[in-house]
Amino acid sequence: MKLNKYVDISTLDKEAKRDYIDRHSAFVKCDKEAEAGKKFKVKVMVGDEYMHPDDPDHFISYVQLWNGEKMLAQANFTEGALGNAANNLEVDFFIVPTKNMKLTAYAFCTKHGLWESDTVEVEVK
Amino acid sequence: MKLNKYVDISTLDKEAKRDYIDRHSAFVKCDKEAEAGKKFKVKVMVGDEYMHPDDPDHFISYVQLWNGEKMLAQANFTEGALGNAANNLEVDFFIVPTKNMKLTAYAFCTKHGLWESDTVEVEVK
Amino acid sequence: MKLNKYVDISTLDKEAKRDYIDRHSAFVKCDKEAEAGKKFKVKVMVGDEYMHPDDPDHFISYVQLWNGEKMLAQANFTEGALGNAANNLEVDFFIVPTKNMKLTAYAFCTKHGLWESDTVEVEVK
Amino acid sequence: MKLNKYVDISTLDKEAKRDYIDRHSAFVKCDKEAEAGKKFKVKVMVGDEYMHPDDPDHFISYVQLWNGEKMLAQANFTEGALGNAANNLEVDFFIVPTKNMKLTAYAFCTKHGLWESDTVEVEVK
Repeated sequence: MKLNKYVDISTLDKEAKRDYIDRHSAFVKCDKEAEAGKKFKVKVMVGDEYMHPDDPDHFISYVQLWNGEKMLAQANFTEGALGNAANNLEVDFFIVPTKNMKLTAYAFCTKHGLWESDTVEVEVK
Repeated sequence: MKLNKYVDISTLDKEAKRDYIDRHSAFVKCDKEAEAGKKFKVKVMVGDEYMHPDDPDHFISYVQLWNGEKMLAQANFTEGALGNAANNLEVDFFIVPTKNMKLTAYAFCTKHGLWESDTVEVEVK
Repeated sequence: MKLNKYVDISTLDKEAKRDYIDRHSAFVKCDKEAEAGKKFKVKVMVGDEYMHPDDPDHFISYVQLWNGEKMLAQANFTEGALGNAANNLEVDFFIVPTKNMKLTAYAFCTKHGLWESDTVEVEVK
Repeated sequence: MKLNKYVDISTLDKEAKRDYIDRHSAFVKCDKEAEAGKKFKVKVMVGDEYMHPDDPDHFISYVQLWNGEKMLAQANFTEGALGNAANNLEVDFFIVPTKNMKLTAYAFCTKHGLWESDTVEVEVK
């Protein structure tokens, strides 16, 4: 497989390419600072300006959240969980950090493979 | 395996049993009404008054969210995602309902098997 | 969800019911004796006389293998892995037993829920 | 995360590095020809000359089998499924090909991330 890396779509000209890349892109959304030993919410989203279909043979079937080389959590979705209409997949994981983190998300499309987000650094005190 | 069904711990006398049952119990937390075609947040939690360990050989490794006979989503956690300390696992799934739902959650402990929540009915308009 | 328990279809009269039940039934197939510390093959199959569809919105998406209250392994399949034609899903797990086992399999159909096999006892020497 | 690509350990000098790389390497083992529409066995193995631990906090927790950009199947293992002793994880997936395939396997170690096998081409008639 090809591991698709994040591309900022504002750098792209062609509408079809912007749509294709954006709707598969994974994003980590969380605060930049966290308290050690306390629950910390990390949102993983797929797509920003564009939405991905939720068809039986073409949907986002899982997202993963990694801290460096350690996978923390994975959420799998069944087709239809988003009502079989285009949308931005979204899940909030609550993790408990113990030291600084480098969080990366992955999104897996059943037709277009694996997509890696940018990495978000979180300072843990 | 045994499918452990939800028990209201206020009906129990023994502290050890209350702790054992509560820390494995899965809960579905969401509004009782939803709008068809709109994203709808469903929180799945494990434990209420008591917390479950997050040890390498003993932790909550996944939760599932079902609507009737259809599984909507599953979140898997790696040991250590909760900082290797006792806590209440928590994840928010964002789903898109199209008609009334009966939501049930399951929690899987690597030592004590599968636990079924009470079912929450959601009216979808 | 309903946890569907194994039913021997030779006890059933109606063809439609025999077909429905058999094609969802999970089976554990392995030797009845194993050597402690040695790899041991356990086949999990779904269906015996009847085959289940592999359609995008209707397929067997996972099977699990349990030893008593401990889940040993789970295999997830993508729709199309069986060529989008009816078949009997099949996977061989290689596990390493250390003491006597009680193996049970589960099959999950994306339309018809979770099905539990009969339990196979394995003597481990 | 880093996606570790297959390295032939016969090209390596240092024993520690040969061991580290080999015990994490994923391998696809199957015939080079298959018949369209017929079940076809594909073995995924982890490690060849060296074995990986099966400790609660350090084990191979999943392998995936891909055909080009499509994931066909994933097998997750619980720690202890290999008896908590070092071994070579092994699973046989039975898939049904419809046209030529390019099969790649991935192995995920809970401490050392994701490892990609060499790709095996299968001619399907």
